[in-house]
Amino acid sequence: MMFQMTIPELEIYMGEIFPQVAQDFQIDTINGDETTMRLLTADRHLRPGGTVSGPSMFALADCVMYAAILARLGKVALAVTTNCSIDFMRKPAANTDLIGTARILKMGRALVVGDVLMHSEGDLRPVARASLTYSIPPAQHLMK
Amino acid sequence: MMFQMTIPELEIYMGEIFPQVAQDFQIDTINGDETTMRLLTADRHLRPGGTVSGPSMFALADCVMYAAILARLGKVALAVTTNCSIDFMRKPAANTDLIGTARILKMGRALVVGDVLMHSEGDLRPVARASLTYSIPPAQHLMK
Amino acid sequence: MMFQMTIPELEIYMGEIFPQVAQDFQIDTINGDETTMRLLTADRHLRPGGTVSGPSMFALADCVMYAAILARLGKVALAVTTNCSIDFMRKPAANTDLIGTARILKMGRALVVGDVLMHSEGDLRPVARASLTYSIPPAQHLMK
Amino acid sequence: MMFQMTIPELEIYMGEIFPQVAQDFQIDTINGDETTMRLLTADRHLRPGGTVSGPSMFALADCVMYAAILARLGKVALAVTTNCSIDFMRKPAANTDLIGTARILKMGRALVVGDVLMHSEGDLRPVARASLTYSIPPAQHLMK
Repeated sequence: MMFQMTIPELEIYMGEIFPQVAQDFQIDTINGDETTMRLLTADRHLRPGGTVSGPSMFALADCVMYAAILARLGKVALAVTTNCSIDFMRKPAANTDLIGTARILKMGRALVVGDVLMHSEGDLRPVARASLTYSIPPAQHLMK
Repeated sequence: MMFQMTIPELEIYMGEIFPQVAQDFQIDTINGDETTMRLLTADRHLRPGGTVSGPSMFALADCVMYAAILARLGKVALAVTTNCSIDFMRKPAANTDLIGTARILKMGRALVVGDVLMHSEGDLRPVARASLTYSIPPAQHLMK
Repeated sequence: MMFQMTIPELEIYMGEIFPQVAQDFQIDTINGDETTMRLLTADRHLRPGGTVSGPSMFALADCVMYAAILARLGKVALAVTTNCSIDFMRKPAANTDLIGTARILKMGRALVVGDVLMHSEGDLRPVARASLTYSIPPAQHLMK
Repeated sequence: MMFQMTIPELEIYMGEIFPQVAQDFQIDTINGDETTMRLLTADRHLRPGGTVSGPSMFALADCVMYAAILARLGKVALAVTTNCSIDFMRKPAANTDLIGTARILKMGRALVVGDVLMHSEGDLRPVARASLTYSIPPAQHLMK
Protein backbone atom coordinates (compact mmCIF):
# COMPACT_ATOMS: atom_id res chain seq x y z
CA MET A 1 0.00 0.00 0.00
CA MET A 2 1.39 3.41 -1.00
CA PHE A 3 0.21 6.49 0.86
CA GLN A 4 0.44 9.95 -0.67
CA MET A 5 0.03 11.93 2.56
CA THR A 6 1.08 11.51 6.21
CA ILE A 7 -1.30 12.07 9.13
CA PRO A 8 0.05 15.59 9.89
CA GLU A 9 -0.20 16.54 6.20
CA LEU A 10 -3.77 15.24 6.08
CA GLU A 11 -4.76 17.19 9.19
CA ILE A 12 -3.30 20.43 7.81
CA TYR A 13 -4.99 19.90 4.44
CA MET A 14 -8.37 18.99 5.94
CA GLY A 15 -8.10 22.08 8.17
CA GLU A 16 -7.75 24.19 5.02
CA ILE A 17 -10.65 22.64 3.11
CA PHE A 18 -13.04 22.04 6.08
CA PRO A 19 -12.17 24.92 8.44
CA GLN A 20 -15.58 24.72 10.17
CA VAL A 21 -15.21 21.16 11.40
CA ALA A 22 -11.55 20.14 11.21
CA GLN A 23 -11.00 20.83 14.91
CA ASP A 24 -13.75 18.31 15.77
CA PHE A 25 -11.79 15.35 14.42
CA GLN A 26 -8.40 13.75 14.95
CA ILE A 27 -6.81 10.99 12.85
CA ASP A 28 -5.57 8.14 15.05
CA THR A 29 -4.02 5.74 12.54
CA ILE A 30 -3.69 4.94 8.85
CA ASN A 31 -2.83 1.33 8.42
CA GLY A 32 -3.15 -0.66 5.22
CA ASP A 33 -6.78 -0.40 4.12
CA GLU A 34 -7.99 0.99 7.45
CA THR A 35 -8.06 4.60 8.61
CA THR A 36 -9.19 5.46 12.14
CA MET A 37 -10.44 8.89 13.20
CA ARG A 38 -12.07 10.13 16.40
CA LEU A 39 -14.79 12.69 16.99
CA LEU A 40 -13.54 14.82 19.90
CA THR A 41 -17.01 14.81 21.39
CA ALA A 42 -18.06 18.23 22.74
CA ASP A 43 -21.35 19.82 23.77
CA ARG A 44 -22.16 20.89 20.21
CA HIS A 45 -22.24 17.23 19.08
CA LEU A 46 -24.72 16.08 21.71
CA ARG A 47 -28.44 15.47 21.96
CA PRO A 48 -30.37 15.64 25.26
CA GLY A 49 -29.23 12.71 27.40
CA GLY A 50 -25.62 13.21 26.41
CA THR A 51 -25.77 11.02 23.32
CA VAL A 52 -23.88 11.97 20.15
CA SER A 53 -26.24 13.37 17.48
CA GLY A 54 -26.97 11.65 14.18
CA PRO A 55 -25.46 14.47 12.08
CA SER A 56 -22.24 14.25 14.14
CA MET A 57 -22.05 10.50 13.44
CA PHE A 58 -22.67 11.19 9.76
CA ALA A 59 -19.89 13.82 9.81
CA LEU A 60 -17.43 11.37 11.39
CA ALA A 61 -18.23 8.69 8.77
CA ASP A 62 -17.80 11.17 5.93
CA CYS A 63 -14.57 12.69 7.29
CA VAL A 64 -12.79 9.44 8.07
CA MET A 65 -13.59 8.02 4.63
CA TYR A 66 -12.51 11.27 3.02
CA ALA A 67 -9.19 11.10 4.90
CA ALA A 68 -8.73 7.50 3.76
CA ILE A 69 -9.20 8.55 0.14
CA LEU A 70 -6.85 11.54 0.42
CA ALA A 71 -4.21 9.32 2.02
CA ARG A 72 -4.31 7.17 -1.12
CA LEU A 73 -4.83 9.74 -3.87
CA GLY A 74 -3.04 12.75 -2.40
CA LYS A 75 -4.11 16.40 -2.31
CA VAL A 76 -5.28 16.40 -5.89
CA ALA A 77 -8.36 14.42 -4.94
CA LEU A 78 -11.63 16.33 -5.17
CA ALA A 79 -13.88 13.48 -4.09
CA VAL A 80 -17.60 14.18 -3.78
CA THR A 81 -19.86 12.05 -1.54
CA THR A 82 -22.65 10.62 -3.71
CA ASN A 83 -24.26 8.15 -1.29
CA CYS A 84 -24.18 7.41 2.42
CA SER A 85 -26.24 4.71 4.09
CA ILE A 86 -26.04 4.59 7.89
CA ASP A 87 -27.43 2.04 10.34
CA PHE A 88 -27.75 3.41 13.86
CA MET A 89 -27.50 0.43 16.21
CA ARG A 90 -26.81 1.55 19.77
CA LYS A 91 -26.75 4.81 21.71
CA PRO A 92 -23.21 6.20 21.78
CA ALA A 93 -21.82 6.59 25.30
CA ALA A 94 -22.31 10.02 26.89
CA ASN A 95 -19.43 12.47 26.79
CA THR A 96 -17.02 10.01 25.19
CA ASP A 97 -15.06 10.25 21.95
CA LEU A 98 -16.58 8.35 19.06
CA ILE A 99 -14.11 6.34 17.01
CA GLY A 100 -14.68 5.52 13.34
CA THR A 101 -12.67 3.02 11.30
CA ALA A 102 -12.92 3.34 7.52
CA ARG A 103 -12.17 0.50 5.12
CA ILE A 104 -11.83 1.13 1.39
CA LEU A 105 -13.48 -1.69 -0.58
CA LYS A 106 -13.07 -0.33 -4.08
CA MET A 107 -10.76 2.39 -5.39
CA GLY A 108 -12.09 2.69 -8.92
CA ARG A 109 -11.33 5.22 -11.60
CA ALA A 110 -14.69 6.97 -11.20
CA LEU A 111 -16.07 5.69 -7.87
CA VAL A 112 -14.60 4.90 -4.47
CA VAL A 113 -16.64 2.67 -2.14
CA GLY A 114 -15.99 1.93 1.50
CA ASP A 115 -17.56 1.44 4.89
CA VAL A 116 -17.09 2.81 8.39
CA LEU A 117 -17.70 1.13 11.73
CA MET A 118 -18.15 3.43 14.74
CA HIS A 119 -17.87 2.70 18.47
CA SER A 120 -17.58 4.75 21.64
CA GLU A 121 -14.10 4.79 23.16
CA GLY A 122 -13.87 2.01 25.74
CA ASP A 123 -16.73 -0.11 24.34
CA LEU A 124 -16.10 -2.05 21.14
CA ARG A 125 -19.76 -2.79 20.33
CA PRO A 126 -20.63 -0.91 17.13
CA VAL A 127 -22.93 2.09 17.61
CA ALA A 128 -23.28 2.76 13.87
CA ARG A 129 -22.17 1.45 10.51
CA ALA A 130 -22.03 3.49 7.32
CA SER A 131 -21.31 2.67 3.71
CA LEU A 132 -20.25 5.54 1.48
CA THR A 133 -19.62 6.14 -2.21
CA TYR A 134 -17.53 8.99 -3.62
CA SER A 135 -17.30 10.19 -7.17
CA ILE A 136 -13.81 11.15 -8.34
CA PRO A 137 -13.74 13.73 -11.14
CA PRO A 138 -11.83 12.41 -14.21
CA ALA A 139 -9.17 15.14 -14.08
CA GLN A 140 -8.15 14.06 -10.57
CA HIS A 141 -7.04 10.70 -11.81
CA LEU A 142 -5.13 12.15 -14.72
CA MET A 143 -3.18 14.34 -12.30
CA LYS A 144 -2.30 11.57 -9.90
CA MET B 1 -55.62 11.98 7.83
CA MET B 2 -55.68 12.87 11.52
CA PHE B 3 -52.92 15.03 12.94
CA GLN B 4 -52.11 15.03 16.66
CA MET B 5 -50.10 18.28 16.70
CA THR B 6 -50.23 21.63 14.91
CA ILE B 7 -47.17 23.32 13.40
CA PRO B 8 -46.73 25.73 16.36
CA GLU B 9 -47.08 22.84 18.84
CA LEU B 10 -44.50 20.84 16.89
CA GLU B 11 -42.04 23.72 16.80
CA ILE B 12 -42.36 24.29 20.57
CA TYR B 13 -41.94 20.56 21.28
CA MET B 14 -38.97 20.13 18.94
CA GLY B 15 -37.36 23.19 20.56
CA GLU B 16 -37.62 21.40 23.92
CA ILE B 17 -36.19 18.07 22.76
CA PHE B 18 -33.59 19.39 20.27
CA PRO B 19 -32.58 22.74 21.80
CA GLN B 20 -29.22 22.75 19.95
CA VAL B 21 -30.69 22.69 16.45
CA ALA B 22 -34.35 23.67 16.62
CA GLN B 23 -33.60 27.27 15.60
CA ASP B 24 -32.02 25.99 12.37
CA PHE B 25 -35.30 24.63 11.02
CA GLN B 26 -38.79 25.92 10.27
CA ILE B 27 -41.84 23.83 9.35
CA ASP B 28 -43.51 25.22 6.23
CA THR B 29 -46.52 22.89 5.77
CA ILE B 30 -48.09 19.64 6.91
CA ASN B 31 -50.43 18.37 4.28
CA GLY B 32 -51.76 14.85 4.02
CA ASP B 33 -48.77 12.53 3.84
CA GLU B 34 -46.30 15.34 3.13
CA THR B 35 -44.45 17.53 5.62
CA THR B 36 -42.20 20.35 4.39
CA MET B 37 -39.42 21.93 6.46
CA ARG B 38 -36.67 24.39 5.59
CA LEU B 39 -33.10 24.66 6.79
CA LEU B 40 -32.59 28.36 7.53
CA THR B 41 -29.15 28.19 5.94
CA ALA B 42 -26.50 30.10 7.92
CA ASP B 43 -22.70 30.18 7.93
CA ARG B 44 -22.46 27.21 10.29
CA HIS B 45 -24.18 24.95 7.71
CA LEU B 46 -21.81 25.75 4.87
CA ARG B 47 -18.74 24.23 3.30
CA PRO B 48 -16.13 26.30 1.39
CA GLY B 49 -17.76 27.55 -1.81
CA GLY B 50 -20.99 28.35 0.00
CA THR B 51 -22.54 24.92 -0.42
CA VAL B 52 -24.63 23.34 2.36
CA SER B 53 -22.66 20.61 4.19
CA GLY B 54 -23.59 16.92 4.12
CA PRO B 55 -24.28 16.76 7.87
CA SER B 56 -26.67 19.73 7.53
CA MET B 57 -28.55 17.94 4.75
CA PHE B 58 -28.67 14.81 6.90
CA ALA B 59 -30.01 16.88 9.81
CA LEU B 60 -32.77 18.38 7.63
CA ALA B 61 -33.82 14.92 6.40
CA ASP B 62 -33.92 13.54 9.93
CA CYS B 63 -35.78 16.55 11.41
CA VAL B 64 -38.48 16.81 8.76
CA MET B 65 -39.23 13.09 8.96
CA TYR B 66 -39.28 13.29 12.75
CA ALA B 67 -41.75 16.18 12.59
CA ALA B 68 -43.93 14.17 10.19
CA ILE B 69 -44.01 11.27 12.67
CA LEU B 70 -44.79 13.51 15.65
CA ALA B 71 -47.60 15.16 13.71
CA ARG B 72 -49.19 11.75 13.35
CA LEU B 73 -48.40 10.07 16.68
CA GLY B 74 -48.34 13.10 18.99
CA LYS B 75 -45.91 14.02 21.76
CA VAL B 76 -45.74 10.50 23.13
CA ALA B 77 -43.62 9.39 20.22
CA LEU B 78 -40.06 8.50 21.10
CA ALA B 79 -38.98 7.50 17.61
CA VAL B 80 -35.36 6.48 17.09
CA THR B 81 -33.68 6.70 13.67
CA THR B 82 -32.39 3.24 12.77
CA ASN B 83 -31.36 3.77 9.14
CA CYS B 84 -30.79 6.67 6.78
CA SER B 85 -29.65 6.31 3.20
CA ILE B 86 -28.91 9.56 1.35
CA ASP B 87 -28.10 10.18 -2.30
CA PHE B 88 -26.36 13.50 -2.90
CA MET B 89 -27.19 14.54 -6.44
CA ARG B 90 -26.41 18.22 -7.01
CA LYS B 91 -24.63 21.01 -5.16
CA PRO B 92 -27.15 23.00 -3.11
CA ALA B 93 -27.31 26.67 -4.09
CA ALA B 94 -25.07 28.99 -2.07
CA ASN B 95 -26.61 30.95 0.80
CA THR B 96 -30.13 29.73 0.09
CA ASP B 97 -32.59 27.88 2.32
CA LEU B 98 -32.76 24.16 1.69
CA ILE B 99 -36.28 22.73 1.58
CA GLY B 100 -37.06 19.11 2.48
CA THR B 101 -40.36 17.35 1.85
CA ALA B 102 -40.99 14.18 3.84
CA ARG B 103 -43.41 11.49 2.75
CA ILE B 104 -44.42 8.70 5.13
CA LEU B 105 -44.65 5.38 3.25
CA LYS B 106 -45.34 3.05 6.17
CA MET B 107 -46.59 3.84 9.66
CA GLY B 108 -46.19 0.42 11.24
CA ARG B 109 -46.52 -0.65 14.85
CA ALA B 110 -42.76 -1.08 15.26
CA LEU B 111 -41.23 0.71 12.26
CA VAL B 112 -41.97 3.91 10.36
CA VAL B 113 -40.49 4.27 6.87
CA GLY B 114 -40.42 7.36 4.70
CA ASP B 115 -38.39 9.40 2.28
CA VAL B 116 -37.34 13.02 1.91
CA LEU B 117 -36.62 15.02 -1.25
CA MET B 118 -34.53 18.17 -0.84
CA HIS B 119 -34.10 21.16 -3.13
CA SER B 120 -32.71 24.68 -2.82
CA GLU B 121 -35.33 27.40 -2.62
CA GLY B 122 -36.02 28.71 -6.11
CA ASP B 123 -34.73 25.62 -7.97
CA LEU B 124 -36.90 22.50 -7.96
CA ARG B 125 -34.20 20.07 -9.14
CA PRO B 126 -33.50 17.67 -6.26
CA VAL B 127 -30.14 18.16 -4.53
CA ALA B 128 -30.53 15.12 -2.29
CA ARG B 129 -32.90 12.25 -1.53
CA ALA B 130 -33.01 10.35 1.72
CA SER B 131 -34.89 7.30 2.92
CA LEU B 132 -35.24 6.86 6.65
CA THR B 133 -36.48 4.19 9.06
CA TYR B 134 -37.50 4.86 12.66
CA SER B 135 -38.12 2.36 15.41
CA ILE B 136 -41.08 3.13 17.67
CA PRO B 137 -40.83 1.70 21.20
CA PRO B 138 -43.83 -0.59 21.98
CA ALA B 139 -45.05 1.52 24.91
CA GLN B 140 -45.45 4.55 22.64
CA HIS B 141 -48.12 2.83 20.63
CA LEU B 142 -50.01 1.67 23.70
CA MET B 143 -50.16 5.28 24.92
CA LYS B 144 -51.36 6.70 21.67
CA MET C 1 -38.98 15.28 -22.29
CA MET C 2 -37.43 13.49 -25.26
CA PHE C 3 -37.53 9.71 -25.41
CA GLN C 4 -35.08 7.71 -27.54
CA MET C 5 -37.04 4.44 -27.55
CA THR C 6 -40.69 3.39 -27.61
CA ILE C 7 -42.14 0.71 -25.32
CA PRO C 8 -42.05 -2.00 -28.03
CA GLU C 9 -38.47 -1.09 -28.92
CA LEU C 10 -37.49 -1.25 -25.24
CA GLU C 11 -39.11 -4.64 -24.77
CA ILE C 12 -37.33 -6.09 -27.82
CA TYR C 13 -33.99 -4.64 -26.70
CA MET C 14 -34.35 -5.81 -23.09
CA GLY C 15 -35.29 -9.27 -24.40
CA GLU C 16 -31.98 -9.34 -26.27
CA ILE C 17 -29.80 -8.21 -23.37
CA PHE C 18 -31.68 -9.97 -20.52
CA PRO C 19 -33.04 -13.12 -22.21
CA GLN C 20 -33.35 -14.99 -18.89
CA VAL C 21 -35.78 -12.56 -17.28
CA ALA C 22 -37.32 -10.36 -19.97
CA GLN C 23 -40.46 -12.50 -20.13
CA ASP C 24 -41.08 -11.83 -16.42
CA PHE C 25 -41.66 -8.11 -16.94
CA GLN C 26 -43.94 -5.90 -18.97
CA ILE C 27 -43.67 -2.13 -19.39
CA ASP C 28 -47.01 -0.45 -18.72
CA THR C 29 -46.27 3.23 -19.35
CA ILE C 30 -43.50 5.76 -19.92
CA ASN C 31 -44.71 9.16 -19.00
CA GLY C 32 -42.52 12.18 -18.34
CA ASP C 33 -40.14 11.24 -15.54
CA GLU C 34 -42.09 8.11 -14.57
CA THR C 35 -41.79 4.61 -16.04
CA THR C 36 -44.13 1.84 -14.85
CA MET C 37 -43.38 -1.87 -15.20
CA ARG C 38 -45.10 -4.96 -13.84
CA LEU C 39 -43.71 -8.25 -12.63
CA LEU C 40 -45.93 -10.91 -14.20
CA THR C 41 -45.92 -12.85 -10.94
CA ALA C 42 -45.50 -16.59 -11.43
CA ASP C 43 -44.62 -19.52 -9.18
CA ARG C 44 -40.89 -18.97 -9.61
CA HIS C 45 -41.16 -15.51 -8.00
CA LEU C 46 -42.91 -16.69 -4.85
CA ARG C 47 -41.95 -17.65 -1.34
CA PRO C 48 -44.04 -20.03 0.82
CA GLY C 49 -47.33 -18.29 1.64
CA GLY C 50 -47.62 -16.96 -1.88
CA THR C 51 -45.68 -13.76 -1.26
CA VAL C 52 -43.30 -12.34 -3.89
CA SER C 53 -39.65 -13.04 -3.00
CA GLY C 54 -37.12 -10.34 -2.13
CA PRO C 55 -34.90 -11.09 -5.15
CA SER C 56 -37.94 -10.76 -7.44
CA MET C 57 -38.73 -7.34 -5.95
CA PHE C 58 -35.08 -6.36 -6.39
CA ALA C 59 -35.23 -7.52 -10.02
CA LEU C 60 -38.36 -5.44 -10.70
CA ALA C 61 -36.74 -2.32 -9.19
CA ASP C 62 -33.58 -2.81 -11.25
CA CYS C 63 -35.43 -3.55 -14.52
CA VAL C 64 -37.88 -0.68 -14.36
CA MET C 65 -35.14 1.82 -13.60
CA TYR C 66 -33.00 0.36 -16.37
CA ALA C 67 -35.92 0.74 -18.81
CA ALA C 68 -36.36 4.35 -17.69
CA ILE C 69 -32.69 5.07 -18.42
CA LEU C 70 -32.78 3.35 -21.82
CA ALA C 71 -35.90 5.31 -22.75
CA ARG C 72 -33.91 8.49 -22.20
CA LEU C 73 -30.45 7.57 -23.47
CA GLY C 74 -31.32 5.03 -26.18
CA LYS C 75 -29.74 1.69 -27.00
CA VAL C 76 -26.22 3.00 -26.63
CA ALA C 77 -26.59 3.04 -22.87
CA LEU C 78 -24.51 0.48 -21.01
CA ALA C 79 -25.59 1.47 -17.53
CA VAL C 80 -24.24 -0.53 -14.59
CA THR C 81 -26.08 -0.67 -11.25
CA THR C 82 -23.69 0.54 -8.55
CA ASN C 83 -26.03 0.80 -5.55
CA CYS C 84 -29.52 -0.32 -4.60
CA SER C 85 -31.13 0.34 -1.25
CA ILE C 86 -34.52 -1.31 -0.70
CA ASP C 87 -37.01 -0.91 2.14
CA PHE C 88 -39.45 -3.80 2.40
CA MET C 89 -42.59 -2.43 4.02
CA ARG C 90 -45.52 -4.80 3.54
CA LYS C 91 -46.08 -8.33 2.28
CA PRO C 92 -46.96 -8.25 -1.43
CA ALA C 93 -50.38 -9.76 -2.18
CA ALA C 94 -50.37 -13.44 -3.11
CA ASN C 95 -50.50 -14.37 -6.80
CA THR C 96 -50.87 -10.79 -7.97
CA ASP C 97 -48.72 -8.74 -10.35
CA LEU C 98 -46.33 -6.37 -8.64
CA ILE C 99 -46.18 -2.90 -10.15
CA GLY C 100 -43.09 -0.69 -9.93
CA THR C 101 -42.94 2.99 -10.83
CA ALA C 102 -39.50 4.44 -11.45
CA ARG C 103 -38.70 8.12 -11.16
CA ILE C 104 -35.41 9.53 -12.42
CA LEU C 105 -34.08 12.17 -10.02
CA LYS C 106 -30.72 12.89 -11.64
CA MET C 107 -29.51 12.12 -15.14
CA GLY C 108 -25.88 13.10 -14.75
CA ARG C 109 -22.96 12.60 -17.11
CA ALA C 110 -21.45 9.83 -14.98
CA LEU C 111 -24.26 8.80 -12.59
CA VAL C 112 -28.01 8.33 -12.87
CA VAL C 113 -30.04 8.30 -9.64
CA GLY C 114 -33.66 7.38 -9.20
CA ASP C 115 -36.18 5.63 -7.01
CA VAL C 116 -38.89 3.01 -7.45
CA LEU C 117 -42.12 2.56 -5.53
CA MET C 118 -43.75 -0.89 -5.71
CA HIS C 119 -47.30 -1.99 -4.94
CA SER C 120 -49.45 -5.05 -5.61
CA GLU C 121 -52.01 -4.59 -8.34
CA GLY C 122 -55.30 -3.49 -6.77
CA ASP C 123 -53.77 -2.14 -3.55
CA LEU C 124 -51.93 1.20 -3.72
CA ARG C 125 -50.13 0.90 -0.36
CA PRO C 126 -46.39 0.59 -1.07
CA VAL C 127 -44.89 -2.86 -0.44
CA ALA C 128 -41.34 -1.74 -1.14
CA ARG C 129 -39.29 1.32 -2.06
CA ALA C 130 -35.90 1.24 -3.71
CA SER C 131 -33.34 3.87 -4.59
CA LEU C 132 -30.82 2.99 -7.27
CA THR C 133 -27.67 4.49 -8.75
CA TYR C 134 -26.23 3.60 -12.15
CA SER C 135 -22.83 4.41 -13.55
CA ILE C 136 -22.78 5.42 -17.21
CA PRO C 137 -19.51 4.70 -19.03
CA PRO C 138 -18.04 7.92 -20.54
CA ALA C 139 -18.19 6.65 -24.12
CA GLN C 140 -21.95 6.17 -23.88
CA HIS C 141 -22.52 9.84 -23.38
CA LEU C 142 -20.23 10.81 -26.23
CA MET C 143 -22.26 8.59 -28.56
CA LYS C 144 -25.63 9.95 -27.51
CA MET D 1 -21.00 -17.55 21.26
CA MET D 2 -23.84 -20.08 21.54
CA PHE D 3 -25.33 -21.53 18.37
CA GLN D 4 -28.82 -23.03 18.32
CA MET D 5 -28.45 -24.97 15.06
CA THR D 6 -25.68 -26.85 13.27
CA ILE D 7 -24.94 -26.43 9.55
CA PRO D 8 -26.80 -29.63 8.55
CA GLU D 9 -29.81 -28.60 10.67
CA LEU D 10 -29.78 -25.15 9.05
CA GLU D 11 -29.63 -26.58 5.54
CA ILE D 12 -32.55 -28.93 6.20
CA TYR D 13 -34.60 -26.12 7.77
CA MET D 14 -33.85 -23.62 4.98
CA GLY D 15 -34.77 -26.31 2.44
CA GLU D 16 -38.19 -26.56 4.12
CA ILE D 17 -38.89 -22.83 4.27
CA PHE D 18 -37.24 -21.79 0.95
CA PRO D 19 -37.78 -24.86 -1.25
CA GLN D 20 -37.41 -22.82 -4.47
CA VAL D 21 -33.88 -21.61 -3.80
CA ALA D 22 -32.32 -23.77 -1.09
CA GLN D 23 -30.47 -25.93 -3.63
CA ASP D 24 -28.72 -22.80 -4.96
CA PHE D 25 -26.82 -22.20 -1.72
CA GLN D 26 -24.43 -24.11 0.53
CA ILE D 27 -23.23 -23.04 3.99
CA ASP D 28 -19.44 -23.26 4.23
CA THR D 29 -18.75 -22.22 7.82
CA ILE D 30 -20.29 -20.66 10.93
CA ASN D 31 -17.60 -19.23 13.08
CA GLY D 32 -18.10 -16.74 15.88
CA ASP D 33 -19.87 -13.72 14.37
CA GLU D 34 -19.19 -14.78 10.77
CA THR D 35 -21.25 -17.10 8.58
CA THR D 36 -20.05 -18.01 5.07
CA MET D 37 -22.30 -19.29 2.31
CA ARG D 38 -21.71 -19.89 -1.38
CA LEU D 39 -23.97 -19.44 -4.38
CA LEU D 40 -23.52 -22.59 -6.46
CA THR D 41 -23.48 -20.51 -9.61
CA ALA D 42 -25.51 -22.04 -12.44
CA ASP D 43 -26.89 -20.79 -15.74
CA ARG D 44 -30.06 -19.44 -14.14
CA HIS D 45 -27.98 -16.99 -12.03
CA LEU D 46 -26.13 -15.46 -14.95
CA ARG D 47 -26.43 -12.42 -17.17
CA PRO D 48 -25.04 -12.29 -20.70
CA GLY D 49 -21.25 -12.33 -20.47
CA GLY D 50 -21.34 -14.97 -17.76
CA THR D 51 -21.58 -12.53 -14.86
CA VAL D 52 -23.76 -13.30 -11.82
CA SER D 53 -27.01 -11.30 -11.89
CA GLY D 54 -27.89 -8.60 -9.36
CA PRO D 55 -30.92 -10.50 -8.01
CA SER D 56 -28.71 -13.57 -7.43
CA MET D 57 -26.24 -11.45 -5.45
CA PHE D 58 -29.15 -9.99 -3.48
CA ALA D 59 -30.43 -13.54 -2.80
CA LEU D 60 -27.01 -14.66 -1.53
CA ALA D 61 -26.76 -11.66 0.81
CA ASP D 62 -30.25 -12.26 2.18
CA CYS D 63 -29.78 -16.04 2.62
CA VAL D 64 -26.41 -15.92 4.34
CA MET D 65 -27.61 -13.29 6.80
CA TYR D 66 -30.78 -15.27 7.42
CA ALA D 67 -28.71 -18.39 8.14
CA ALA D 68 -26.55 -16.38 10.55
CA ILE D 69 -29.66 -15.25 12.43
CA LEU D 70 -31.18 -18.75 12.57
CA ALA D 71 -27.88 -20.15 13.85
CA ARG D 72 -28.18 -17.76 16.79
CA LEU D 73 -31.91 -17.74 17.49
CA GLY D 74 -32.88 -21.26 16.40
CA LYS D 75 -35.84 -22.47 14.36
CA VAL D 76 -38.32 -20.28 16.14
CA ALA D 77 -37.01 -17.20 14.38
CA LEU D 78 -39.37 -15.66 11.86
CA ALA D 79 -37.11 -12.81 10.80
CA VAL D 80 -38.34 -10.47 8.07
CA THR D 81 -35.93 -8.44 5.90
CA THR D 82 -36.84 -4.76 6.28
CA ASN D 83 -33.91 -3.10 4.49
CA CYS D 84 -31.09 -4.12 2.21
CA SER D 85 -28.54 -1.72 0.77
CA ILE D 86 -26.10 -3.20 -1.75
CA ASP D 87 -23.03 -1.68 -3.40
CA PHE D 88 -22.01 -3.47 -6.58
CA MET D 89 -18.30 -2.92 -7.00
CA ARG D 90 -16.81 -5.34 -9.52
CA LYS D 91 -18.10 -7.85 -12.05
CA PRO D 92 -18.23 -11.32 -10.47
CA ALA D 93 -16.05 -13.86 -12.26
CA ALA D 94 -17.81 -15.92 -14.94
CA ASN D 95 -19.03 -19.40 -14.03
CA THR D 96 -17.55 -19.32 -10.55
CA ASP D 97 -19.20 -19.74 -7.16
CA LEU D 98 -19.89 -16.50 -5.34
CA ILE D 99 -18.98 -16.52 -1.65
CA GLY D 100 -20.72 -14.31 0.90
CA THR D 101 -19.57 -13.73 4.47
CA ALA D 102 -22.16 -12.33 6.88
CA ARG D 103 -21.27 -10.48 10.05
CA ILE D 104 -23.90 -9.71 12.67
CA LEU D 105 -23.36 -6.23 14.11
CA LYS D 106 -26.42 -5.99 16.35
CA MET D 107 -28.68 -8.72 17.65
CA GLY D 108 -31.37 -6.57 19.25
CA ARG D 109 -34.75 -7.55 20.68
CA ALA D 110 -36.64 -6.08 17.72
CA LEU D 111 -34.00 -5.57 15.01
CA VAL D 112 -30.99 -7.49 13.79
CA VAL D 113 -28.39 -5.60 11.72
CA GLY D 114 -25.47 -7.03 9.80
CA ASP D 115 -23.44 -6.82 6.64
CA VAL D 116 -22.25 -9.20 3.95
CA LEU D 117 -19.11 -9.06 1.82
CA MET D 118 -19.13 -11.07 -1.41
CA HIS D 119 -16.28 -12.25 -3.63
CA SER D 120 -15.82 -14.75 -6.44
CA GLU D 121 -14.09 -17.98 -5.44
CA GLY D 122 -10.38 -17.60 -6.08
CA ASP D 123 -10.32 -13.77 -6.04
CA LEU D 124 -10.62 -12.02 -2.70
CA ARG D 125 -11.45 -8.55 -4.06
CA PRO D 126 -15.03 -7.72 -3.02
CA VAL D 127 -17.58 -7.78 -5.84
CA ALA D 128 -20.43 -6.52 -3.66
CA ARG D 129 -21.20 -5.40 -0.13
CA ALA D 130 -24.63 -5.45 1.46
CA SER D 131 -26.02 -4.21 4.75
CA LEU D 132 -29.27 -5.76 5.92
CA THR D 133 -31.79 -5.20 8.68
CA TYR D 134 -34.29 -7.80 9.89
CA SER D 135 -37.30 -7.31 12.11
CA ILE D 136 -37.88 -10.05 14.70
CA PRO D 137 -41.51 -10.49 15.79
CA PRO D 138 -41.88 -10.05 19.58
CA ALA D 139 -43.19 -13.59 20.16
CA GLN D 140 -40.04 -15.09 18.68
CA HIS D 141 -37.93 -13.65 21.43
CA LEU D 142 -40.27 -14.79 24.15
CA MET D 143 -40.03 -18.34 22.81
CA LYS D 144 -36.26 -18.42 22.61
